[in-house]
Amino acid sequence: VPRATTVIGDGFTVGGIAKGAAMLEPNMATMLAVLTTDAEIDAAAATEMLRAAVGTSFNCLTVDGAESTNDTVLLLANGSAGPVDPDALGAALAEACLSLAVQMADDAEGSTKTVFLTVTGAASDAEAAKGARDTANCQLVKCSWYGEDPYWGRIAAEMGAAGIAFDPDTISISYGGQIVYAAGQAQTVDEAALTTHMAGRTLDLDVDLGQGSGTARVVTTDLSHAYIDENMRTS
Amino acid sequence: VPRATTVIGDGFTVGGIAKGAAMLEPNMATMLAVLTTDAEIDAAAATEMLRAAVGTSFNCLTVDGAESTNDTVLLLANGSAGPVDPDALGAALAEACLSLAVQMADDAEGSTKTVFLTVTGAASDAEAAKGARDTANCQLVKCSWYGEDPYWGRIAAEMGAAGIAFDPDTISISYGGQIVYAAGQAQTVDEAALTTHMAGRTLDLDVDLGQGSGTARVVTTDLSHAYIDENMRTS
Repeated sequence: VPRATTVIGDGFTVGGIAKGAAMLEPNMATMLAVLTTDAEIDAAAATEMLRAAVGTSFNCLTVDGAESTNDTVLLLANGSAGPVDPDALGAALAEACLSLAVQMADDAEGSTKTVFLTVTGAASDAEAAKGARDTANCQLVKCSWYGEDPYWGRIAAEMGAAGIAFDPDTISISYGGQIVYAAGQAQTVDEAALTTHMAGRTLDLDVDLGQGSGTARVVTTDLSHAYIDENMRTS
Repeated sequence: VPRATTVIGDGFTVGGIAKGAAMLEPNMATMLAVLTTDAEIDAAAATEMLRAAVGTSFNCLTVDGAESTNDTVLLLANGSAGPVDPDALGAALAEACLSLAVQMADDAEGSTKTVFLTVTGAASDAEAAKGARDTANCQLVKCSWYGEDPYWGRIAAEMGAAGIAFDPDTISISYGGQIVYAAGQAQTVDEAALTTHMAGRTLDLDVDLGQGSGTARVVTTDLSHAYIDENMRTS
């Protein structure tokens, strides 16, 4: 399935196409994406901008924790739109890359859920990223998404096992904006609203560690019977 | 399912019982095992022996990479057999612990394969252990075991992504003693024998990195539809 995106800027346009299926934990590693723009920009500035955009998009994507073997992202700029505001171009590039990354998650092997997992309140951004990635790649957590089960226990356990600053009494865990666990205990929720959220294609999972101001976000997927079917035999 | 083992030594006996299902990557963390012996041994020596036995058994077991939350191993010694050869007792303890660990893998959640993954030729024992554990916990590799597919490509990729000394031209990968990949290419195998091995309950996977003398072994399991069924809902 081809994935494409177009971001219209003020006087310029950014386009992108990409392929990717699973074996996806880009570290710039089986993913191929090409971005194009008519903005006029020199190679050094374009490289810096693309690295930043990749950092908050493709490199925040993990399907199965299996590092992809040969990722490539290319940016082509023909300059026909002339000089543009670099901040606006950077933002457009980041938006285009994120759109492609989310489209990859949406049709990753066997994926039935695309999960936006945001960690806040970590001791540092690096600790937030470690906790987010360990949780995103946990088989048990992935199974719970497939089962549409707001299973906070394993999420807390993964954060606690991630080797980051952690206190079970300060962590809060929310699905679709509803706090399911906080202050050391399960919280009363609107069961109907929570069930509706868990049944959706997209899940929003927010974890506040209550330790500091570090943040991170990863985009990931569930673990389904179809994932196993696609990967149990290579031929 | 209760798991039990008895190891008869020269003048003494070691017995053990254990429970464990999944969420099993003991770091002494949901596993409970009790070992008993009639050997006479003081607490300090018993502790040292038990730590060594746990290191080569329970702590080499990983079902799903999800660290278990409250593992306990106890050794009770009543001394009624009198003093014994400490090396013999240590070996018996290690044998009893390994038997229990393998029994846990044999009936772990949804497990259809118990895999003995041995890494040799690593730059160090620590690098061997890192490569072994990353490979054992890789969803793609686990799916290939369920599919009885001697898929060497992802095994090589996991070793290469593990951050350890690695060269695709020196790694060799064997299933059931048959080399499937070596010297940078797929090897000719006895297809019938390989198919029979892959169809068995127990798989022997040996990876020689060709980098040094470091070794490690982990005991692990496959990823099956039944694992997902058992974990997609907590209630």
